[in-house]
Amino acid sequence: MDELDIETVAEVDLDDPVLVEGLPGVGHVGKLAVDHVLEECAGDCTLVRRIYSQEFPPQVTVEDGVADLTCTEIHAVSFPEGRDLLLLTGDHQAQTNAGHYVLTSAFLDVAEEFGASEVYALGGVPTGELIDEYAVVGAVSDESLLESLEEAGVEFRENEPAGGIVGVSGLLLGLGERRGFEAACLMGETSGYLVDPKSARAVLEALEDLLGFDVDYETLDERADEMEDVIGKIQEMEQQQQMDVPTDDDLRYIG
Amino acid sequence: MDELDIETVAEVDLDDPVLVEGLPGVGHVGKLAVDHVLEECAGDCTLVRRIYSQEFPPQVTVEDGVADLTCTEIHAVSFPEGRDLLLLTGDHQAQTNAGHYVLTSAFLDVAEEFGASEVYALGGVPTGELIDEYAVVGAVSDESLLESLEEAGVEFRENEPAGGIVGVSGLLLGLGERRGFEAACLMGETSGYLVDPKSARAVLEALEDLLGFDVDYETLDERADEMEDVIGKIQEMEQQQQMDVPTDDDLRYIG
Amino acid sequence: MDELDIETVAEVDLDDPVLVEGLPGVGHVGKLAVDHVLEECAGDCTLVRRIYSQEFPPQVTVEDGVADLTCTEIHAVSFPEGRDLLLLTGDHQAQTNAGHYVLTSAFLDVAEEFGASEVYALGGVPTGELIDEYAVVGAVSDESLLESLEEAGVEFRENEPAGGIVGVSGLLLGLGERRGFEAACLMGETSGYLVDPKSARAVLEALEDLLGFDVDYETLDERADEMEDVIGKIQEMEQQQQMDVPTDDDLRYIG
Amino acid sequence: MDELDIETVAEVDLDDPVLVEGLPGVGHVGKLAVDHVLEECAGDCTLVRRIYSQEFPPQVTVEDGVADLTCTEIHAVSFPEGRDLLLLTGDHQAQTNAGHYVLTSAFLDVAEEFGASEVYALGGVPTGELIDEYAVVGAVSDESLLESLEEAGVEFRENEPAGGIVGVSGLLLGLGERRGFEAACLMGETSGYLVDPKSARAVLEALEDLLGFDVDYETLDERADEMEDVIGKIQEMEQQQQMDVPTDDDLRYIG
Repeated sequence: MDELDIETVAEVDLDDPVLVEGLPGVGHVGKLAVDHVLEECAGDCTLVRRIYSQEFPPQVTVEDGVADLTCTEIHAVSFPEGRDLLLLTGDHQAQTNAGHYVLTSAFLDVAEEFGASEVYALGGVPTGELIDEYAVVGAVSDESLLESLEEAGVEFRENEPAGGIVGVSGLLLGLGERRGFEAACLMGETSGYLVDPKSARAVLEALEDLLGFDVDYETLDERADEMEDVIGKIQEMEQQQQMDVPTDDDLRYIG
Repeated sequence: MDELDIETVAEVDLDDPVLVEGLPGVGHVGKLAVDHVLEECAGDCTLVRRIYSQEFPPQVTVEDGVADLTCTEIHAVSFPEGRDLLLLTGDHQAQTNAGHYVLTSAFLDVAEEFGASEVYALGGVPTGELIDEYAVVGAVSDESLLESLEEAGVEFRENEPAGGIVGVSGLLLGLGERRGFEAACLMGETSGYLVDPKSARAVLEALEDLLGFDVDYETLDERADEMEDVIGKIQEMEQQQQMDVPTDDDLRYIG
Repeated sequence: MDELDIETVAEVDLDDPVLVEGLPGVGHVGKLAVDHVLEECAGDCTLVRRIYSQEFPPQVTVEDGVADLTCTEIHAVSFPEGRDLLLLTGDHQAQTNAGHYVLTSAFLDVAEEFGASEVYALGGVPTGELIDEYAVVGAVSDESLLESLEEAGVEFRENEPAGGIVGVSGLLLGLGERRGFEAACLMGETSGYLVDPKSARAVLEALEDLLGFDVDYETLDERADEMEDVIGKIQEMEQQQQMDVPTDDDLRYIG
Repeated sequence: MDELDIETVAEVDLDDPVLVEGLPGVGHVGKLAVDHVLEECAGDCTLVRRIYSQEFPPQVTVEDGVADLTCTEIHAVSFPEGRDLLLLTGDHQAQTNAGHYVLTSAFLDVAEEFGASEVYALGGVPTGELIDEYAVVGAVSDESLLESLEEAGVEFRENEPAGGIVGVSGLLLGLGERRGFEAACLMGETSGYLVDPKSARAVLEALEDLLGFDVDYETLDERADEMEDVIGKIQEMEQQQQMDVPTDDDLRYIG
């Protein structure tokens, strides 16, 4: 096996498709979003490429006894309305700095092969606290893209994200721009502590606006409800603990 | 020296051999198993290849003053009954992620050279507690292999091993499948805390069933007995310590 | 993208230019110095090369929503008086040992392309304490360079810097010498705890002496004043804390 | 610069020379030994090769203001009596596992170029306690070398060194053997806590026996005396501290 091995699983004709990336990251926002689109269009999507690499962990996953080598998968999706999509997802990021460059270049190679010239990297931006209103923060490879994203409700802020964007999402913008792609990153606000289906929905709604497709959110909302239950129980336990600790007031009445 | 250096020590003709891997890992189960087969067939096995690599630690072992460079060895074994074997073992795994890919590819190259199309990776799966009944858990490169392994008593469980299979054993399945090998991993249950000859025997018995060869277990059982003695002493010491600590009941009578 | 990607942004004719490097390091002295020259000659400098590399972190910075891939920039500057300069700066050093060699070689390639045969690496040398008089310590690739630097007030000390010079600054001397460059490193003394504009000014004044150019220091002095304020406040807080702690004498009078 | 850069400093004719390696390691025994031979034959040795590599730290050392790039140096030495030597020394080992393989291969290339077919790797083996009698422990690439080394007083022990030999010294044996060199490692016993000139002398005396050359030990003995003084002072301080702590006996008389 070479450093990189792109397996052709199927060939399909796409009309000016858009590459949408959702690898694991903050709040699993990007992966939740892309996995949800894949679930919702199950009948209309085709697995077209698998990308294997020495940059991934040396690992197989096992399901019902059958092993699968770590890889990134790209599915082609044609919705009745809206743009054709190339959905990229997987269970792992690269394990080294250089590996992120190697893999991102390979992803852009595949996008180019299918005639794509636009890229959306989906992810989360951590706020450090629980969130009521899920804003979507953006970053683009070129100033000319700002307007259309702002019209779709994406927010651009002076110094955010403060530490820049690291990993494949960042490099899809950086390397993408150098190869002539129009690339944008949509980052859903998320606490950073929990898997966050609500943030994934916020990101997907912005993407629907931009690309004209339409998915149902029932299953994603169910996952969000489950997470709400988990959060509720955590908060209850915290309140209980606080009540068990005598406060200064309690102590005043003891003596 | 190149990144990889495969030394031809001897050439032998084998009839549709099976590659069996036993490198160091959980409970040393795989290495114990392959080393035991090598001991039992001492007269009928031939060292055919040594694989040296920059991916191994930069190290020689020294025995009676003579140094040997770290490598992986492959022996050819022809039993009176059952399939011909290529037994792979050594003292080290690769030291980097990419190294596991490089070495596994080299191992499969050698297997191919000898006309092998089947691979068994032997290892252990940690349970976190001492074990009475040593089950063997399996994983395969292709669904079609499940039935024959189940008939040999190998168990397949829905979400096991939970973290997948890492290192050469995992990649023999993952890369093996991509190169057209039929590959299976046999993992003996083991506490994960101790070298475990009993788990190695359980794995070997399943392999005997599958490949039709037959080895004696006297020396492996002796090692198992030695380990039992060690475990017995540890348990005694633990009980002694518990008796020395006054319990709540003891304290009740002091006052 | 290859391991290294040198983008030609513009071509300019320079007369025997000098490469001046100021990447992040101790007290940010080198980067402050080169950034200050770039600010002061804003009208007369041209961005000529961007150097991208897998050796940098896989990261984009985001400013007002627009992403920029991590790189090193080289500007050409022609002052009314003094030598032409190639100013090299950026936000990151290489992330691996080998990466420092790869990037430094690339920087020297660019210098060669523009006909440069001299290199100045700017940086700081940590003293561990706050400084009144900012000396500039030097190191050169060849003995013949000592005299001219000493005349510009640069100090050479028997065993300094004690640990040698690490990273791009060190390799510009080491690799530069092997490729026929005359290379020197100017290191401003600095506490090592704080960003140090005064040390950067000391280094720049030595460089002005050596290369004959002339910059205004007003903005750099303003930054130095801001840092003085910060230091003053820290010292005040420390003194306050010391006064709040009762000394042995205080305790004597309490009883 | 490539991954490896072997600079030809001078060419000399040698008669069947022996490569003797002394890089930094346990007790600096190997480096002290080779540096001492270089000092003693100052007039009769010629620097023939410098080996630069990305595998070394990215660093220059600075002496009296002049920088030198990290490298390994090989000197040719012709004594009036005894075998011609190629003395290899430097300030650094490789920084990665693979780097040790790369550098050792390069060192053997140079040895081959000068017609050498024998290699001695000098080093220390840690005992964990201060030493009176400095034994020299050996390891060889081939059984046939054991006898001549034993005659020179080198000891071979069943399971020593227990962890094998790591780094360039180990690989000179391991890779050397694979390339047809006769290679031996001479390891002076040393506490492992201190730079140990006495252990270096023990190793050199064995080497003199084996190769027939003759050096004076005055300067090395002076360094050993200095170390004795240091050790003496440490022991005094320890005894003083023990005396300051009241023992059980002291306490008996207080009450």
